[in-house]
Amino acid sequence: MNIIPIGTIHTPFTTPENMPIQPPGAAGVKGSIEIFEDYWAGIKDLDGFSHILLLYFFDRSTGFDLHLVPFMDKEPRGVFATRAPRRPNPIGLSLVQLDEIRNSTLYIRNVDMLDGTPLLDIKPYVPEFDQALQVRTGWLKQARKTVHERRSDDRFKQ
Amino acid sequence: MNIIPIGTIHTPFTTPENMPIQPPGAAGVKGSIEIFEDYWAGIKDLDGFSHILLLYFFDRSTGFDLHLVPFMDKEPRGVFATRAPRRPNPIGLSLVQLDEIRNSTLYIRNVDMLDGTPLLDIKPYVPEFDQALQVRTGWLKQARKTVHERRSDDRFKQ
Repeated sequence: MNIIPIGTIHTPFTTPENMPIQPPGAAGVKGSIEIFEDYWAGIKDLDGFSHILLLYFFDRSTGFDLHLVPFMDKEPRGVFATRAPRRPNPIGLSLVQLDEIRNSTLYIRNVDMLDGTPLLDIKPYVPEFDQALQVRTGWLKQARKTVHERRSDDRFKQ
Repeated sequence: MNIIPIGTIHTPFTTPENMPIQPPGAAGVKGSIEIFEDYWAGIKDLDGFSHILLLYFFDRSTGFDLHLVPFMDKEPRGVFATRAPRRPNPIGLSLVQLDEIRNSTLYIRNVDMLDGTPLLDIKPYVPEFDQALQVRTGWLKQARKTVHERRSDDRFKQ
């Protein structure tokens, strides 16, 4: 099966070292998406949605290991229990906020991917389809608590 | 970019005509995933997660139109403002509940894909990464209301 880019994602992140290690770290970070001309007609009606799901190609990632030690952990985990970019099919998935569409450019927020990342697909975010309740998150449980504490700290500083 | 299946999704749906047209219609429907032997090690730690995101190949879908009339609507919409299978890159995304892992088989719930669908990736569902609040859903807004009413109707029947 062959996959082709439909656009390019632009973000402030040019090297993996400066990246936010998780979406809460990318909160508010602005980026944009340049849709290729062949696909312009496909973004009709997208401006009615406040949030979109992006599928993209981890183009600067090579190979994969089935076990890896993720950020915020010390134990090796199975790759499918992580969001690591080095995967058998290196496809990334991120939920971003859609602020505005001008001409063929999408202005987005909460970006956590590298500048120049090839876009594969856009899907509208629909709570009835994409939201789960009463969720267990395995090894990430402790890390998630830390995320909450960090956000609370930031809030009190404002 | 080349994409390879890492497993096969099994569901009760053998033809597109018998499919639920949206995830609420698939609520409770059970399926399973057979992971190919080369990737068995990658599902370590996944059993700690109650919900997983599946990326899969719409293998019985051919070609695409940039404008299409979705289910539950009468107007043509841009393909990227819909979840239709006929897309420039025919990759599906579904949130499912993970009930159990036995050997290399994942037992899942809330399936809305065809039996035999090739699996491309599994990602753990993490509310901090995957959940949006204060969401606008454009043309789907009216359809979403209907979804809620239908679910309420079913609940009263029990």
